[in-house]
Amino acid sequence: MRWRLDWYASLSLVGTVIKYLALTMVVPLIVAVIYGEDFWVFLVSLAVALGIGIGLEQFDDDPDLGPPEALLLVSVSWLAVAVVAAVPYVLAGYGTESTLRLPVNALFEATSGITTTGATVMGEISVDSHSHAIMMWRQLTQWLGGMGIIVLMIAILPELAVNGAQLMQSEAPGPELQKLTPKIAETARALWIIYFGFTIALIVILYGLNLVGLAPEMNLYNAIAHGFSTLPTGGFSPQADSIAAFSAVVQWVIIPFMVVAGVNFALFWHVLRGEFRTLVDNTEFRAYAGAIAVLVAVLTSVLALGGAPALERGGVTEGLTENTIRQAAFQIASLMNSTGFATADFAQWDQHAQMLLLFTMFIGGSAGSTGGGVKVVRWLVVLKTIRRELYTTVHPDAVQPVRLGGKVIDEDAIRGIMVFTLLYIVLFAVSAVFLELDSARIGEPISTLEAFSASLATIGNIGPGFGSVGPFGNYEGFSALSKLLMVFLMWIGRLEIVPVLALFVGRIQDR
Amino acid sequence: MRWRLDWYASLSLVGTVIKYLALTMVVPLIVAVIYGEDFWVFLVSLAVALGIGIGLEQFDDDPDLGPPEALLLVSVSWLAVAVVAAVPYVLAGYGTESTLRLPVNALFEATSGITTTGATVMGEISVDSHSHAIMMWRQLTQWLGGMGIIVLMIAILPELAVNGAQLMQSEAPGPELQKLTPKIAETARALWIIYFGFTIALIVILYGLNLVGLAPEMNLYNAIAHGFSTLPTGGFSPQADSIAAFSAVVQWVIIPFMVVAGVNFALFWHVLRGEFRTLVDNTEFRAYAGAIAVLVAVLTSVLALGGAPALERGGVTEGLTENTIRQAAFQIASLMNSTGFATADFAQWDQHAQMLLLFTMFIGGSAGSTGGGVKVVRWLVVLKTIRRELYTTVHPDAVQPVRLGGKVIDEDAIRGIMVFTLLYIVLFAVSAVFLELDSARIGEPISTLEAFSASLATIGNIGPGFGSVGPFGNYEGFSALSKLLMVFLMWIGRLEIVPVLALFVGRIQDR
Ligand SMILES: [K+]
Ligand SMILES: [K+]
Repeated sequence: MRWRLDWYASLSLVGTVIKYLALTMVVPLIVAVIYGEDFWVFLVSLAVALGIGIGLEQFDDDPDLGPPEALLLVSVSWLAVAVVAAVPYVLAGYGTESTLRLPVNALFEATSGITTTGATVMGEISVDSHSHAIMMWRQLTQWLGGMGIIVLMIAILPELAVNGAQLMQSEAPGPELQKLTPKIAETARALWIIYFGFTIALIVILYGLNLVGLAPEMNLYNAIAHGFSTLPTGGFSPQADSIAAFSAVVQWVIIPFMVVAGVNFALFWHVLRGEFRTLVDNTEFRAYAGAIAVLVAVLTSVLALGGAPALERGGVTEGLTENTIRQAAFQIASLMNSTGFATADFAQWDQHAQMLLLFTMFIGGSAGSTGGGVKVVRWLVVLKTIRRELYTTVHPDAVQPVRLGGKVIDEDAIRGIMVFTLLYIVLFAVSAVFLELDSARIGEPISTLEAFSASLATIGNIGPGFGSVGPFGNYEGFSALSKLLMVFLMWIGRLEIVPVLALFVGRIQDR
Repeated sequence: MRWRLDWYASLSLVGTVIKYLALTMVVPLIVAVIYGEDFWVFLVSLAVALGIGIGLEQFDDDPDLGPPEALLLVSVSWLAVAVVAAVPYVLAGYGTESTLRLPVNALFEATSGITTTGATVMGEISVDSHSHAIMMWRQLTQWLGGMGIIVLMIAILPELAVNGAQLMQSEAPGPELQKLTPKIAETARALWIIYFGFTIALIVILYGLNLVGLAPEMNLYNAIAHGFSTLPTGGFSPQADSIAAFSAVVQWVIIPFMVVAGVNFALFWHVLRGEFRTLVDNTEFRAYAGAIAVLVAVLTSVLALGGAPALERGGVTEGLTENTIRQAAFQIASLMNSTGFATADFAQWDQHAQMLLLFTMFIGGSAGSTGGGVKVVRWLVVLKTIRRELYTTVHPDAVQPVRLGGKVIDEDAIRGIMVFTLLYIVLFAVSAVFLELDSARIGEPISTLEAFSASLATIGNIGPGFGSVGPFGNYEGFSALSKLLMVFLMWIGRLEIVPVLALFVGRIQDR
């Protein structure tokens, strides 16, 4: 069987994506005008992006997508968008001290935004050393990436039956998901409205708290910036000390929104229609919520028992105080589904607390959410499959299908999930070793824990890790080679690994 | 479906195993007599073991084995044998400074021997501080463990279709493998003869080298001791500096025997019958031999380029000298299939060389060999399954069975292998984190690399790791809790994980 790929159709649609990206640059352009900053950066970027987009569109005036083209479109789009999104960083950095003036750093930052990772190579995070416009663009890239991921998760991957993505569909059918037809647009629109709604709600609440005097630092700019960062499980903040910059009440408000960002968005569609039980009966949602509850309880205990020293960011967590509970709840809600915000310098917590966070970072969000990582539903299937295997070892004649939420899971989906999980772990581990070796090569050795956390934080689209890449550190110290590896990890991690690798292997086997 | 386990039959057969173990204590007893050492240690141990064995046998005078009983027998036997094998260590250590006087250390050392791991908690490794008899017992436990593993691998697990163990059978049918009937004894005998033959050959060659003056340190005692350690991929040595204690020619002789120990023994049965092609055409054998060749070439380059400092053990490896090639070949042959002998202190090599060895340690021996780890055949199936998954993502309608050596692999076997590999990696990683936390708890913190290598070296039955658990270090510094975890890891690693865990899960699901 020969795989005939329609490159023209794929490139044409990538062009359309870039054209829309160009239009979004109007947002930072307006910010620049408001704050009286250089707006030519975004004017030029917009023109360049528009030109590339329209140019690519000419390849095919009526593109038609089959499965291979859809995969190619998705994979290439994310990369192309990252490259175009890096343009403003390079332009704005030109002639300054900004670390983002270097193309590799700009690409890293743009990829980190578009993939909703939130890992940064920005030297000094501040609207003073950069500009309000650039910092808002950085926030916006995450929000756009989140929109992209919703379409990918709920409309495209399930159709391609990738990695058992179809599971999510069978568990929560959501708006009628049909062929790769105009229905996609309809589905996407319904889910985008939910995404948009939550974002607006968060911005309104945050700015409202500021107006009533409960959040002094949360001006309108910051409210919008963090609205752009929370729902996509992004993690960037224009504040150098992330959410530690804000009052306790702001932190408490952001926690539930982070939790929401890790839930399958199709479930909210049901809730809007009054079918609340569809949410609370959903197996993955229950596991997701349950895991958060248990992990918060455990981390609270660890911190209360002295797991953290008294820190400048995060304060004293000894004893069962409001601060202890808040630090635990915030960090778990942030790290489990891959958001990456921080209210405490958890890289300075003790080993028990750090290992608990590392474990948390392995879980991931729900399928159909903007969260990254392995994801809750896959872990459920992996655990049930292991259990089934152990059982049938003792009972060789037993026929035991794996069930989730009462439904039998297709064996193909199970195999896809096992392959994904193994690939995820192996790529993560091999990359970690590479990062450690490469750091030693350039004379800036990092610890094994730092290397592993950097690898996990990028392939899992989380953002912060431990040590130098902790929540208030950054990834600037890595070599260009390591940064490109991490760009690759963020890219394939965000695209669920298999679709990207499949393009390479599909090609190889066809020849 | 209810699982009715015949405990009596299982315990009775465990008794038989222990009875035979008791008889093997005659070997160190004779050594003690020859060297004029305390022989009461082994006389008492023998009596105790014989008593326990015969006592257990009384539970059932005509035991009949079904699959669950076979699993129970295997799992409990290894543990029971380790406990009984620890008795001489405790007795001999009584009233001395020996670290093995402590039961937890004795159990660790005995489990390490019986599982052919070769990780040691012996403080001072020498026939002077211990005795020739104890040191020979330590060597013998490995050789006995190797005999056990051959039966397990070739006669029992394939019948139970555990983890795709049946693969090995379909690829290399070996002596007719039939039901759990008296045939097992016949199969086992044929393979034991091969195992015995290689052992004798090695001992004769080693002692011969001594007689002709090419191996001054290799007296008859040492020749036998290392014969007992090589074929089971054990790794214990009565010499504190392992094989670095011997001349280059001894090291060159041991290399091919280590390689042989990692090959499916059923293949040699074919070679003995003149079917040499069965060996060289075997897919796993080719992959195994190929991997060794490639890894030796890469490591030689790394060492030649300055990957190792001039060491007391291992000497100067800069440049392409005989010593460089020998160090590379020896360490790869030793670590890939989990032997664990060393001729250089590779824990002092540079990061590149260490990471290469770490990668090597993940591979494992062949199915049906005495080698531990994930094993070559499983990695082949995992890689082919991943490739198939990527291919079918692009070609959703393609039906592609996974093939090995031209034969289609059963989907059940594939699933078993995926489950095993994932379990192996997860247990390894979780245990590593535990070891690191527990070491910090007792105030003897170890690095992440040390923790990960200790976990891998025990679950993979390898023996040495890096840092303090390097080839000339030991595991004594861990807490009793950590040692018990590693006893557990050695045990389940040697028994291919699934059969042991299945016993627990099988029970749970039955209730
Ligand atoms: K993130
Ligand atoms: K070993």
